[in-house]
Amino acid sequence: MSQLVKDLGEKALLERLQQFCLPEVVGDDAAVIATQPGKSLVVTTDMLVDGVHFSDRTTSAEDAGWRAAAANLSDLAAMGASPLGITIALGIPGDTSITWIEQLYQGITQCLQKFATAVIGGDVCRSSVKTIAITAFGEVHSEYTIRRSTAQVGDAIVVTGVHGASRAGLELLLQPESRQKLSSSAQKKLIQAHQRPQPRLDVLPVLWEVICQTANTNAHIHVAGMDSSDGLADAVLQICQMSQVGARVERSFIPLPDELKNWSFQQALDWALYGGEDFELVLCLPPDLAQVLVERLGNGAAIVGEITDDSEVYLVDYTGKNPDEVLSFKRGFQHF
Amino acid sequence: MSQLVKDLGEKALLERLQQFCLPEVVGDDAAVIATQPGKSLVVTTDMLVDGVHFSDRTTSAEDAGWRAAAANLSDLAAMGASPLGITIALGIPGDTSITWIEQLYQGITQCLQKFATAVIGGDVCRSSVKTIAITAFGEVHSEYTIRRSTAQVGDAIVVTGVHGASRAGLELLLQPESRQKLSSSAQKKLIQAHQRPQPRLDVLPVLWEVICQTANTNAHIHVAGMDSSDGLADAVLQICQMSQVGARVERSFIPLPDELKNWSFQQALDWALYGGEDFELVLCLPPDLAQVLVERLGNGAAIVGEITDDSEVYLVDYTGKNPDEVLSFKRGFQHF
Repeated sequence: MSQLVKDLGEKALLERLQQFCLPEVVGDDAAVIATQPGKSLVVTTDMLVDGVHFSDRTTSAEDAGWRAAAANLSDLAAMGASPLGITIALGIPGDTSITWIEQLYQGITQCLQKFATAVIGGDVCRSSVKTIAITAFGEVHSEYTIRRSTAQVGDAIVVTGVHGASRAGLELLLQPESRQKLSSSAQKKLIQAHQRPQPRLDVLPVLWEVICQTANTNAHIHVAGMDSSDGLADAVLQICQMSQVGARVERSFIPLPDELKNWSFQQALDWALYGGEDFELVLCLPPDLAQVLVERLGNGAAIVGEITDDSEVYLVDYTGKNPDEVLSFKRGFQHF
Repeated sequence: MSQLVKDLGEKALLERLQQFCLPEVVGDDAAVIATQPGKSLVVTTDMLVDGVHFSDRTTSAEDAGWRAAAANLSDLAAMGASPLGITIALGIPGDTSITWIEQLYQGITQCLQKFATAVIGGDVCRSSVKTIAITAFGEVHSEYTIRRSTAQVGDAIVVTGVHGASRAGLELLLQPESRQKLSSSAQKKLIQAHQRPQPRLDVLPVLWEVICQTANTNAHIHVAGMDSSDGLADAVLQICQMSQVGARVERSFIPLPDELKNWSFQQALDWALYGGEDFELVLCLPPDLAQVLVERLGNGAAIVGEITDDSEVYLVDYTGKNPDEVLSFKRGFQHF
C-alpha cells in the first residue's frame, strides 16, 4: 500500500517534491528567476482552505482576504522584492454568497492598495470547499536579494518589530474571557495585529539606505533573512539550517508588545517564538549595520542575538537565571 | 438574503470581480505587465478541483498533471509569451497517497520539460478535496503580445490545427463501446489528444518569422488571438466580443481529425466547435500572412473564416446547403 500524506508529514513531503523543482529555487520564501541583467523576478504562492486557514467562525471574509494578501506580500518583503501584482485563483461551492466573495476581494485589494500593488489576474471555479490560491510576484535588484542561506558567523540577528501580538489577538478572539485583562484599546490593537497584519515592505528602502550609507568597505553586504510568519523560532532555525550556522538568541531582547505584560513573561515569550503570523522580518547582517537599522526603524525593531558557528540555535539568558535552551522545529506548526 | 454564486453564474461573477482587478489586464488569457522597456511579464492562473476538473475514474494523476501544465502553457502561447516557469499550490486530504502526488508532479514536469521550462515554487496544504492551483508566467516582446481585442475587419481567422480530437478522446474513455468504430491506433491518437494535449508554443517562432519576412509595409502587424481551450466557437466569439467585430466561419474549412470520419459530420463539427481542450491557437491576421502561416505550420493548420463588420459570428456553408447559423456563448461551458 502506498504511503499516505498524513504518515509522511509536511516537511518530508516537501522534501520529496523538491526533486520536481529547479534546485536553485528551493528553500526560500519565494522563487527567484533572473529576467534581465541585474534584476530578478520573485514569485511566491500560497493556498488557503476554509476550515484549515480561515473560518467564518473567527475570520470575516474581508479579514481573510487581507491576511492572504499580507502573507504573500510578506514573502516578497522577505526576499527584498517590491510587489508587481498578484493573481487569485478561487474555488467556491455554488451556495457561496456573492457578498462573501466581494468582501474577500475587498480585503485583498485594501491590503494591496496600501502597498501600491494590484490584482492582475485570476480564475474562479467550483469546489466543495472555499479555497483561495494567491500567487504574488515582485522584482528585486539581484544583488539585494535576501536569502535564507547567506547568514554569516558574527552577524547580528535583527527583528523589525514586536512578536507575539498576532497570537495574543487570536487568544482574545478564541477565549473572550481573556479580554478582561486588557483595556479596550489594548484589545483592539492585538486583535488588529491578528486580523490586519502588516507586511514589512516599508523596511526595504530603509535597509538599502543603511547599507549604502554605512557600509565602509567595498565588499558586498549579503543580508540573510526571512519573515516570521511561522514564528520567530522557526525563522531563526530556518536561516541557520540553510546557512549551516548556529545562533544565540537572548530571551530578554525579544521585543514583546506592551499589551502582553498582563500575561506571564513565559506565555508572552512562547507566543513570540512559536505563535507565528507576526509577519515581521528576521534579518542577519553585520552588527554595525544592524545597530543603525534598528535605530532608523524604531517601533520595536531590535537586535535579538547573533549568528555563531555552533550547530544549534540556543535561547539564552544573560542574567544566568535560566539555563540555555536548544530551539527546535518540533514545536513549530505542521500542516498534516 | 445575499445572492448565491449558483444563481449569478460564472460570467456574471467574473464581471463583478473585475472591479477589483487592474482594468488593463482584464479579458485576455493572461495578464500582461510591462517590466522593462520593450518586454512584458505575462501571468496566468488556473485552479483544478478533484471531481470537477479531473477524477481518478477518468484521469490518472500523471495525466491530470500534464493537462494542468499544458493548459497554463497554452494560455502563455495564446498571449505570444515564452514560459519562464510555473508555481504549484496543492491542497490535499491527509489520506492522499504519496504516489498519487508524485505522479501528479511527474505529469506536470514531463510537460514542462518538453517545453523547456520548470517548476520554480509552490505550496502544499491540507484540504478536504484535492485541489491544484497553477500559476504560469512568461515573457513577451511587448509589440508581439497577442491580445483578444485587436482583430480587424478583413483579417483571416487561422486555427493552428485540428479540432474535436480531445472531446472524441473523452468520448472513448467515457463510452468504451464507441471504440469499436476505430482501429486501435486511431483510438490511441484521440485518447492521447485528450490526456496529453500539446500547448502550441511551437507556433510562436513560426508566426514571428512569417510576419518579419512577409509583411511588406512598415505598419506594425497586430496579431489577435487566444487558445481554443473552451472550444473553437468560444474562442472566435471572445475575440469578436473584445474586438467589437463580427466573423464568418466556414463550416467545411474547420479542420477535423481523420479519426472523426467514423462519426457523423454534425457530431464531429459539434465537438470541434464546443468540445474544448484542443489547446490550439485561434489567430486573426491579414490574409496574405495567414496563408503563409498555415502553409508553414501544416498539420491541419487552416484558415477557417474572416473577421467582418457584422455584429454576429456566423457559421456559414459556401455550398448553400445549410443556412447561416449565429454562434453564441450559450452552448459554451459554464462552471456553476
